[in-house]
Amino acid sequence: MSVNQREIGRRKLLNEIRRQQRIPRISLSEVTGISRATVTTITAELLREGLIEEVTSDTTEKDSKRGRPKVDLKIRGVARLIAGAKISNKTISLVLLDFEGTQLADHEAALETTVLSADEMAQVLAELVEELAQKVDHSLQDVAGFGLGIAGVVDAPRGFVHWSPSLTSRNVTFGTVLEDALGIPVFLDNDANLVAMAEKSFGLGQGHSDFIVVTIESGVGMGIVINDEIYRGTRGCGAEFGHTKVQLEGALCRCGQRGCLEAYVADYALLREAMLASGEAAERQVDEVLQAAKDGDEVAASIVERAGRMFAMGLANIVNIFDPELIILAGEQMQSSHLYAEEVIVSMRKSIVQVDKAPPEVVIHKWGNLMWARGAAAYALENVSENALLEMADNVV
Amino acid sequence: MSVNQREIGRRKLLNEIRRQQRIPRISLSEVTGISRATVTTITAELLREGLIEEVTSDTTEKDSKRGRPKVDLKIRGVARLIAGAKISNKTISLVLLDFEGTQLADHEAALETTVLSADEMAQVLAELVEELAQKVDHSLQDVAGFGLGIAGVVDAPRGFVHWSPSLTSRNVTFGTVLEDALGIPVFLDNDANLVAMAEKSFGLGQGHSDFIVVTIESGVGMGIVINDEIYRGTRGCGAEFGHTKVQLEGALCRCGQRGCLEAYVADYALLREAMLASGEAAERQVDEVLQAAKDGDEVAASIVERAGRMFAMGLANIVNIFDPELIILAGEQMQSSHLYAEEVIVSMRKSIVQVDKAPPEVVIHKWGNLMWARGAAAYALENVSENALLEMADNVV
Repeated sequence: MSVNQREIGRRKLLNEIRRQQRIPRISLSEVTGISRATVTTITAELLREGLIEEVTSDTTEKDSKRGRPKVDLKIRGVARLIAGAKISNKTISLVLLDFEGTQLADHEAALETTVLSADEMAQVLAELVEELAQKVDHSLQDVAGFGLGIAGVVDAPRGFVHWSPSLTSRNVTFGTVLEDALGIPVFLDNDANLVAMAEKSFGLGQGHSDFIVVTIESGVGMGIVINDEIYRGTRGCGAEFGHTKVQLEGALCRCGQRGCLEAYVADYALLREAMLASGEAAERQVDEVLQAAKDGDEVAASIVERAGRMFAMGLANIVNIFDPELIILAGEQMQSSHLYAEEVIVSMRKSIVQVDKAPPEVVIHKWGNLMWARGAAAYALENVSENALLEMADNVV
Repeated sequence: MSVNQREIGRRKLLNEIRRQQRIPRISLSEVTGISRATVTTITAELLREGLIEEVTSDTTEKDSKRGRPKVDLKIRGVARLIAGAKISNKTISLVLLDFEGTQLADHEAALETTVLSADEMAQVLAELVEELAQKVDHSLQDVAGFGLGIAGVVDAPRGFVHWSPSLTSRNVTFGTVLEDALGIPVFLDNDANLVAMAEKSFGLGQGHSDFIVVTIESGVGMGIVINDEIYRGTRGCGAEFGHTKVQLEGALCRCGQRGCLEAYVADYALLREAMLASGEAAERQVDEVLQAAKDGDEVAASIVERAGRMFAMGLANIVNIFDPELIILAGEQMQSSHLYAEEVIVSMRKSIVQVDKAPPEVVIHKWGNLMWARGAAAYALENVSENALLEMADNVV
């Protein structure tokens, strides 16, 4: 067995044990196609590294020959601590997981200013991760990896932020700034990608290798999962669903361009029209516009309906390009419900290429702020797991 | 070494030999990470099966110790014959390749009717592949696999045509119809996917793992390559770029829906406007409209310019979603040059998410009808190669 093969074998077995939660050695050999002898060798290494552990199988069935209880392998929870966080408009949410993915603690803090410099933001996060770790009697330095979701255009593999509404400057290697401030490995990604990661790891995307997640907060985000992996594009500028154009020379978007989907469906787009119609200078809330539409106000209804039609058109374009099995409309804000309405889904179905086969399933998944943070932690967990394997390889060589 | 590992090893080595064209055993071991002993065992099997052969290395350098000439491995061209074809509006183009991918013959035939029943089309193709094989003193039955590109919505892995402008009926398992008529394995795909396959195998996509190909004939097609593979979606309805919507409730498309990109940029879209403007009932040709635009006819210029702006908007949407490294605008018709013009590319660049990094490279690749057929043959070659490996596995078990 070459070094290369041994590395591939370790990765395969560790991932399989994680996927199966508990599995005896003999089944590991069967599902992976790796010989029993190699499974024995590699799992011994993983046990020695403390990444997995043996547990007595729940079954009362005994090994018939020797009367010994059957033994399963599982991920060893205490092997590593993993933190994840999501920066929202006015709050930062955090979770702490063990190496099995079990949530040990969570934490939420208000942000006084919505936009900070990279250094200030890193300082805030270092303090919050420390507070989080203290909740389980650990400190920041005990955390093996920190995953962070941030809005904006992020080149994840390079930890590079092209721009983010949460940071004062563009083009920051924010991953490095964070690693300097926290002193632990940091894994950074666009927040919508981390929702896709959360859906895949413990949400509605479980068991699906290809699906699309659309998120609506103040902006419109998208995460694309292809072949079990987040698709990120080559410059970290992929999946910019909110800035796909739905109208040539259309409404002005916050990004400075015209006709973006966001310029028709985001909060500010609805408010812009509502204020114009009412002639009021006073700021209105989006939920007031939505309520007025429900109460039969024709102008409000027209504003809300157009947003729905534009959203349906944007979704149909995604279906025509990806032909996904599943689309998850994910979000924490109830105020997006007009976009997730049945008539919007029906309108989307009418706008896709018509074949005599069922259209993609569309599901709506409403959840709280912690889901984003859990996605960030799941991303960190994946990377920490990979790093643990690479360290093993170094030990061997 | 398990059966599973041996199969994976064979696939890896055969693909590597194909990629490198000529390579000594020792380098094979180095680049694949497979041990020298296993490389020796597996290449002996591949030699015995006649899929590869030994050739004396070109180099004058000798094995220092024993003075023997160095030996490279290469794919054995005569191992298999592969045919590929593309059904166009009025012609069928075919090529014949050997197992190395070298083109042995080509053939082109006029189609008297543009739409045929599946059975009639299969009969025509069987005759044409027979004629093609005879050009190198072989017959249809000597061909190991036939790849076919057809316009429309095709579920490639199932050989299923949801609909095609070339066939009279919808929902045909055309792959099976063809295999019955030809008596050899058939591999069917959407024609734009096969252009992407051609670009990847011997065009501008060589060495790129992720890129997008856009084709313009009478319709607008797209092929997506992600991680070195054609992305096909889950129902065979992906990459329908021509039917992404660029205008809510916009111009009527041939597909019956409104606002599709095709309804603004395809031949019929330009002619529809040109005829309305001129008030002439007589049919005009697209190149007349393009020429009129060049000659300063304002109405013609307005028609052509709008097509360009809509095309730029559609392309920008693709970039915002995929963030590809490379976009290949491929086609055989010079008449698409107004869409491939510099001002269209500039307009696309202005409509994508702006970051301080170069936008994707856009290249234009004009070629003849045979490129499509070569792509179809490349697709068949990939599958024939895989089948040859599976037959070996069966022999072992």
